Amino acid sequence: MPYFDAASAAPLHPVARQALLAALDEGWADPARLYREGRRARMLLDASRETVAEAVGCRADEVVFTSSGTRAVHTGIAGALTGRRRTGRHLIVSAVEHSSVLHSAESFEAGGGSVTTVAVDRAGAVDPSAFTDALRQDTALACLQSANHEVGTVQPVAEVAGVCRAAGVPLLVDAAQSLGWGPVEGDWSLLAASAHKWGGPSGVGLLVVRKGVRFAAQGPVDERESGRAPGFENLPAIVAAAASLRAVRAEAAQEALRLRELTERIRARVPELVADVEVAGDPRRRLPGIVTFSCLYVDGEALLHELDREGFSVSSGSSCTSSTLTPSHVLRAMGVLSEGNVRVSLPPGTAAQDVERFLEVLPGVVAGVREKLGAPAAAPAAAPAAEAEELVVDSLGKRCPIPVIELARVFGDVPVGGTVRVLSDDEAARLDIPAWCEMRGQEYVGEEPAERGTAYVVRRIG
Amino acid sequence: MPYFDAASAAPLHPVARQALLAALDEGWADPARLYREGRRARMLLDASRETVAEAVGCRADEVVFTSSGTRAVHTGIAGALTGRRRTGRHLIVSAVEHSSVLHSAESFEAGGGSVTTVAVDRAGAVDPSAFTDALRQDTALACLQSANHEVGTVQPVAEVAGVCRAAGVPLLVDAAQSLGWGPVEGDWSLLAASAHKWGGPSGVGLLVVRKGVRFAAQGPVDERESGRAPGFENLPAIVAAAASLRAVRAEAAQEALRLRELTERIRARVPELVADVEVAGDPRRRLPGIVTFSCLYVDGEALLHELDREGFSVSSGSSCTSSTLTPSHVLRAMGVLSEGNVRVSLPPGTAAQDVERFLEVLPGVVAGVREKLGAPAAAPAAAPAAEAEELVVDSLGKRCPIPVIELARVFGDVPVGGTVRVLSDDEAARLDIPAWCEMRGQEYVGEEPAERGTAYVVRRIG
Repeated sequence: MPYFDAASAAPLHPVARQALLAALDEGWADPARLYREGRRARMLLDASRETVAEAVGCRADEVVFTSSGTRAVHTGIAGALTGRRRTGRHLIVSAVEHSSVLHSAESFEAGGGSVTTVAVDRAGAVDPSAFTDALRQDTALACLQSANHEVGTVQPVAEVAGVCRAAGVPLLVDAAQSLGWGPVEGDWSLLAASAHKWGGPSGVGLLVVRKGVRFAAQGPVDERESGRAPGFENLPAIVAAAASLRAVRAEAAQEALRLRELTERIRARVPELVADVEVAGDPRRRLPGIVTFSCLYVDGEALLHELDREGFSVSSGSSCTSSTLTPSHVLRAMGVLSEGNVRVSLPPGTAAQDVERFLEVLPGVVAGVREKLGAPAAAPAAAPAAEAEELVVDSLGKRCPIPVIELARVFGDVPVGGTVRVLSDDEAARLDIPAWCEMRGQEYVGEEPAERGTAYVVRRIG
Repeated sequence: MPYFDAASAAPLHPVARQALLAALDEGWADPARLYREGRRARMLLDASRETVAEAVGCRADEVVFTSSGTRAVHTGIAGALTGRRRTGRHLIVSAVEHSSVLHSAESFEAGGGSVTTVAVDRAGAVDPSAFTDALRQDTALACLQSANHEVGTVQPVAEVAGVCRAAGVPLLVDAAQSLGWGPVEGDWSLLAASAHKWGGPSGVGLLVVRKGVRFAAQGPVDERESGRAPGFENLPAIVAAAASLRAVRAEAAQEALRLRELTERIRARVPELVADVEVAGDPRRRLPGIVTFSCLYVDGEALLHELDREGFSVSSGSSCTSSTLTPSHVLRAMGVLSEGNVRVSLPPGTAAQDVERFLEVLPGVVAGVREKLGAPAAAPAAAPAAEAEELVVDSLGKRCPIPVIELARVFGDVPVGGTVRVLSDDEAARLDIPAWCEMRGQEYVGEEPAERGTAYVVRRIG
């Protein structure tokens, strides 16, 4: 039963399991105590910190163990912003950061701070010069992920760190998706990561704060973890996290090559096997194990459900699978199609035949979902059936991908030069209709407010 | 090797270990996902929540899993205070709460809130009428532990909850020390606890917020755990925490009887076996497994070190073992001796012969430490060697218990009615010199500022 959602949570690495078991026996006591059980726990904690520091490329006393990657991000951003509040109350984030970063930014903004969001290109990457432009006299902190969690695009962290360093602004790197593959290059100031993304246990995050970075821990005082992560240390899990980080690193170079071949195969084959597919993310600067594509005229939730029935566990940035009913902010920032979105993230050790089987079942699954939804055939009719210069499609009250399906169904009915107005109140249409135009080589004229919802206007140019 | 520090961290219960192992295989995936691994994780999370709710005596949707007991307390207090900020900015805490509560109160005070600290009696218990007196129109929250972590005294939670309920003020109960023994009685509003105190794994705390209690989660938005505990759920540990809570509860009634006999024996025998000992805490309303005593003329750190050499792991509220160099706030609030303090907290399953061996080795260990420090013999000389009406002891620069030892050494040299002035700059003297007077039946006249440090004046009355 292939599990292809390592970017959400990787299965526990065997070394993590062994280390956890050993540490349950040796590391359950309070490492702050002086008796033998406490001293043993302290030794395990110290050794784990050394191991992590080596893998990150920092000093052991710069490493703080938190209870999750999200907590590491929240703590890191709040601590760095407060530590530099005399400099100013301006924060820079990229548009495709993890929700923990964006929610921290919202919280900062709600408290009176100002936030600049740096845009990304269609591949999901930032341009270092955009950070240069965003930096201000009052910038307290900048944040950039090492690699994107939804499309796998690797960011130019070293360059952005250089730009920030030159301006005297600390850069916090969310390295959750990449730390298992290697250290983060460049002169960054803070780093956050999450053990369960590299095959460690849940319950452990990392926050690294370089010496010399101004940092003011928030919330009630607590003496553990340099005062930066309150509460009794989750020691057996910390030991397992450190041991598994070392283990995955030892296997990283070879496994990266292997997974990169597999994801390259998916990138190449899916558009051949399935019509009307857009592959997202940078084709070269990307993580080894993540590949993401979107299928026109497909409901993401139905697709995931059918793939699950076939034994494949994947994730989706489509609106329909998230509890918020809005499309992935990452896909939106990239300007790519969000409907029928599938993220395949292969855990280390994924067998090639599982990927082949995925490629075998995918066309049938997509076709099945499209058929159920009444999606149009791949190529629109060449000759218009009617001569109306403008058609209106009322998709009000209908959820993605129905508005796009209804657009495609009537599109052959307008002549070249004619337009279709799609009325929709689904937020995803704002992203998917322009993306459809891009994929179909048609002109997206723009959107206009309608009596209900929004009218999206598309002109037939071919 | 007897481990007698269960109040810090209990060894992992066998059921916790089994459940953790099973959940590592079944519960590593993201419970928010719809594929089979996610659904399995969600089922485990839901079942754990039901189990905990049953043990606490609340609804499942009132239970939030946090990363530690400390985090539960911080989150609970901040959320309740903010939720009721329109009512006012006044917080009530008892003087003997866990540091996580007191640090939350300090943080609230630093942000402009006001805090009333309710005193305790010499046994460590609050009087419900003191909460009645402390309640104000602008009281947003009151906090009381179910039982004290240093001396085991059980607090009148149900009575205090009644008083608070009548005033419309929510009561947060820190149940960290008692939840393994049984549910918290009374009409409380919020409850915090910690799994590793009942034999569960580290990395799991509980926060219970009763329906109808105003609560505003602080910090960046996160959708997990009803928005009250950000970050990926520490699921295998949560499963282990819930399973072990049920297991220890099944054994609680019988084990409480057994441990109570053992701690009763320590309470009775230690003062017979060792001279100049004060047993702390309520003799009746107390937890089954905790007993605390203080030995005059003994350095707590040396005592712990010698007991560790004999194979006993215990804890101490003496100044000398804490990193802050101030005596335990609990012992200070109770007004009892802090020097040579030993807390014995027996984990379930403690063998009677281990307690007997502890009682065998303790007198020799205390005598050894006293001899090294040059402590006086148990009874002071009856006849004064000198006729000076006032003697001055200069203990400046000397750490506890030296000031008390030097007081005791010269005390026989003043006649009845005469006084000894002890000059000390150790904060512990403020507690230990009055406690010595209480134990010796001598009069503590009071303290006066001195050129350096403080002068503590004692009059010989017998």
